[in-house]
Amino acid sequence: MTNKPFHYQNLVHDEWVDYNGHMNDAAYAKAFSQAVDAFIDDIGLDEETRKSWGYTIFTLESHICYLQEAHRGQELRLDIQLLDEDAKRLHVFFTMKNTEGDLLATSEQMLMGINSEQGRPAPFPDPVAAAIRQLREAQQQLSIPKQAGRRIGIKR
Amino acid sequence: MTNKPFHYQNLVHDEWVDYNGHMNDAAYAKAFSQAVDAFIDDIGLDEETRKSWGYTIFTLESHICYLQEAHRGQELRLDIQLLDEDAKRLHVFFTMKNTEGDLLATSEQMLMGINSEQGRPAPFPDPVAAAIRQLREAQQQLSIPKQAGRRIGIKR
Repeated sequence: MTNKPFHYQNLVHDEWVDYNGHMNDAAYAKAFSQAVDAFIDDIGLDEETRKSWGYTIFTLESHICYLQEAHRGQELRLDIQLLDEDAKRLHVFFTMKNTEGDLLATSEQMLMGINSEQGRPAPFPDPVAAAIRQLREAQQQLSIPKQAGRRIGIKR
Repeated sequence: MTNKPFHYQNLVHDEWVDYNGHMNDAAYAKAFSQAVDAFIDDIGLDEETRKSWGYTIFTLESHICYLQEAHRGQELRLDIQLLDEDAKRLHVFFTMKNTEGDLLATSEQMLMGINSEQGRPAPFPDPVAAAIRQLREAQQQLSIPKQAGRRIGIKR
């Protein structure tokens, strides 16, 4: 993990726009998934390391809130906040913002460390655990985002 | 809406498989999104009708539980359950199963009917509202799936 705070930049690709003329709901999921890939790189799980250690990350669960439409060619900035973790799991929260800093969407996710030879959950390798601790310490002042921990439902 | 129960079939496309050798998390979102498109067709909102009525459906929120891995070429069957609705919103739940009927994933979603000229929420057109009532009546005996209404979090 570098000393710079992690963030990930992308833009709304042509093929991400659907018949409604805006970024398709599944394309938001794609952008958040790519941000997870960049994040696990950042905590020491790049392609080479995943192969040599036989260790990877699976997504167990994800929750997206769609707050504003995004349009073709628009720049996107994704940031991560670590909400919780244990020896094998990361509970993370991503924001997606436009260049003005408006919140377009959020994605809350549960990620699981996996021994890829056994296909079973396994504790984070030491350097990864150290990077996670470093992120937690850097973020301990952050408050819980209001979209975190949501249940979907019509309120009456 | 036809009299046959709605379901949607797909398969794990080559480009849906990621470096972990299984269907990528964002591809599950894509499959569920395509099932929503097929579903709104089924309740009377196909492309022609959306254009002539100036009415469409947006996704407000979605929650995926990843329960089993899916692999290249595997057949997928997606079914919908209507959990709740009001004049403008549908609270829906999709299951994704393999050909043996094993549950691979679920997607809970909140969908909103939109007047596409104003870009604002608007009540379902009458024929769509009638199709939704018909679906509710057909499904009134179904129990609430255990993945519905989940909050993401590490339980301790």
